[in-house]
Amino acid sequence: MSKILICYYSKSGNTEKMAKEISRGVEESDADVEVDLKEVDETQIESLPKYDCIILGSPTYYGLPCGDIKKFLDESIKHHGDLEGLVGGAFTSSANTAGGNETTIVALLESLIIHGMIVKGMPKGDHYGPVAVGEPGEKELKHCSYYGKWMAEFTEKIASLEV
Amino acid sequence: MSKILICYYSKSGNTEKMAKEISRGVEESDADVEVDLKEVDETQIESLPKYDCIILGSPTYYGLPCGDIKKFLDESIKHHGDLEGLVGGAFTSSANTAGGNETTIVALLESLIIHGMIVKGMPKGDHYGPVAVGEPGEKELKHCSYYGKWMAEFTEKIASLEV
Amino acid sequence: MSKILICYYSKSGNTEKMAKEISRGVEESDADVEVDLKEVDETQIESLPKYDCIILGSPTYYGLPCGDIKKFLDESIKHHGDLEGLVGGAFTSSANTAGGNETTIVALLESLIIHGMIVKGMPKGDHYGPVAVGEPGEKELKHCSYYGKWMAEFTEKIASLEV
Amino acid sequence: MSKILICYYSKSGNTEKMAKEISRGVEESDADVEVDLKEVDETQIESLPKYDCIILGSPTYYGLPCGDIKKFLDESIKHHGDLEGLVGGAFTSSANTAGGNETTIVALLESLIIHGMIVKGMPKGDHYGPVAVGEPGEKELKHCSYYGKWMAEFTEKIASLEV
Repeated sequence: MSKILICYYSKSGNTEKMAKEISRGVEESDADVEVDLKEVDETQIESLPKYDCIILGSPTYYGLPCGDIKKFLDESIKHHGDLEGLVGGAFTSSANTAGGNETTIVALLESLIIHGMIVKGMPKGDHYGPVAVGEPGEKELKHCSYYGKWMAEFTEKIASLEV
Repeated sequence: MSKILICYYSKSGNTEKMAKEISRGVEESDADVEVDLKEVDETQIESLPKYDCIILGSPTYYGLPCGDIKKFLDESIKHHGDLEGLVGGAFTSSANTAGGNETTIVALLESLIIHGMIVKGMPKGDHYGPVAVGEPGEKELKHCSYYGKWMAEFTEKIASLEV
Repeated sequence: MSKILICYYSKSGNTEKMAKEISRGVEESDADVEVDLKEVDETQIESLPKYDCIILGSPTYYGLPCGDIKKFLDESIKHHGDLEGLVGGAFTSSANTAGGNETTIVALLESLIIHGMIVKGMPKGDHYGPVAVGEPGEKELKHCSYYGKWMAEFTEKIASLEV
Repeated sequence: MSKILICYYSKSGNTEKMAKEISRGVEESDADVEVDLKEVDETQIESLPKYDCIILGSPTYYGLPCGDIKKFLDESIKHHGDLEGLVGGAFTSSANTAGGNETTIVALLESLIIHGMIVKGMPKGDHYGPVAVGEPGEKELKHCSYYGKWMAEFTEKIASLEV
């Protein structure tokens, strides 16, 4: 059974709502996966290598992931090399449409890529990863759920390889 | 009198609508500026150094400015160094909300920064530069007009220096 | 047998040297792959979906891929959706160390991600993809060769899935 | 007299060496400026609006500024809007040539742009801002010193406006 971590920071609750809906999508998928949904300050760096997929969620603060998520990434250097070949993904909530959400997700993907992780985009919808502007509405939550399902299926396939 | 160039590529007409509204904003400002509104294939590379401000507009194609705008930037190497200290800006229209519009604008700003140009963000609204998702509506056009006015005033000030 | 396309633009010859060395790395790998090495203006958009992996190479022009490569990406919209699940990669040569090479590669990866392609980083060496500053020397060419081998093996694995 | 803040985080000492050399460049310039050189945890968020220029320095951690610098930026929201029109700049030290240094600087510039700050690139040298790979050598320190001088002169001019 493959394991997926959804690790997020949320102050307003918007990113948390997205995280929960992605988690629901993972659980509702037909893939043989289980999911851990954790706030970043409850997540053990030591636990990272046991996952097959790590999805990071952050609010958009000044066009980048928030400091808590960034500190977590900084500390993940303990496992530099150990996360190679894991699947990675990212999502964010921002205050405005062109308010830095894409640059936040791309920033997170850059960090995951430096870990040697595997990133896959979506030709439809939010290409780089799920985005909500303000409180996520029905459409955004549906996209989160779809994303969770889709990441579960992708992770199951990748985990069957020895990348 | 300061001179502003708005240089754009538009296929669907959405980017062109934004360009025209930014141009109107420049004209309606109180700043002592004049504006040239030109499609990219009508713009002479040789003319670039005579401007005090260059604003580039492109549709979002695969998260980046379109090939025509990029080719124009490639050719601008003829004037590498000559554009230092000019004001630069960028805008884009994209098909989707998280469809690559921010990465397109940031890409354009990166090119302008490499030319040594001066870029200023906006603490309110579309921070990196105006974005429209699909056909620009009333709100987006108003923002374009505001942006034009704001760039006109900024350019007038910068042009009064010898940067 | 998996098929890899290395598609590049080169004016000074530096990007071409990298392309050839990546191609050699693919050929020398033990993976069951074959490689097509093509200049971008010889590459048929129609051929893209037959590949299992597409690696794009461009010189760094103003911090971004050159116009010819960008135009090629623009035209690839004909196959939007058809490239989902293919492996993607990118490399660049630039004039200076901090001269825009990383932003060029990240720009290319963004486009590939929007196609729904699969991107994997390297925890060692040039994380986002191979970079040469000026004419690629022995170290850079060795890294290119290593990258080709590594991409061949990764592609063989991914192609065995049905992503 | 204009005031410049150089605010940095440094663990290995490499970023600190760059910071000191930029500071020296500011001091040696003919511009009528004074400089405060501060580690990020000694910098008061409340002090930010009193500066005419803010230059941020960070090591490159996973292709982005470190968590401490990011937290500082997050907290700077207290003064959102108040920093509009200030000059902004960034520098970084990284372990490898293509190891994420450009994406770190561009990330910092994105944050400064969202604050409404004014960013200017350099047509020569490290276009986005000074970069050192490993311990900064003579060439890199010279570039830092040049950058400090250049930022001092630019800040003096901008501060004379009312942007």
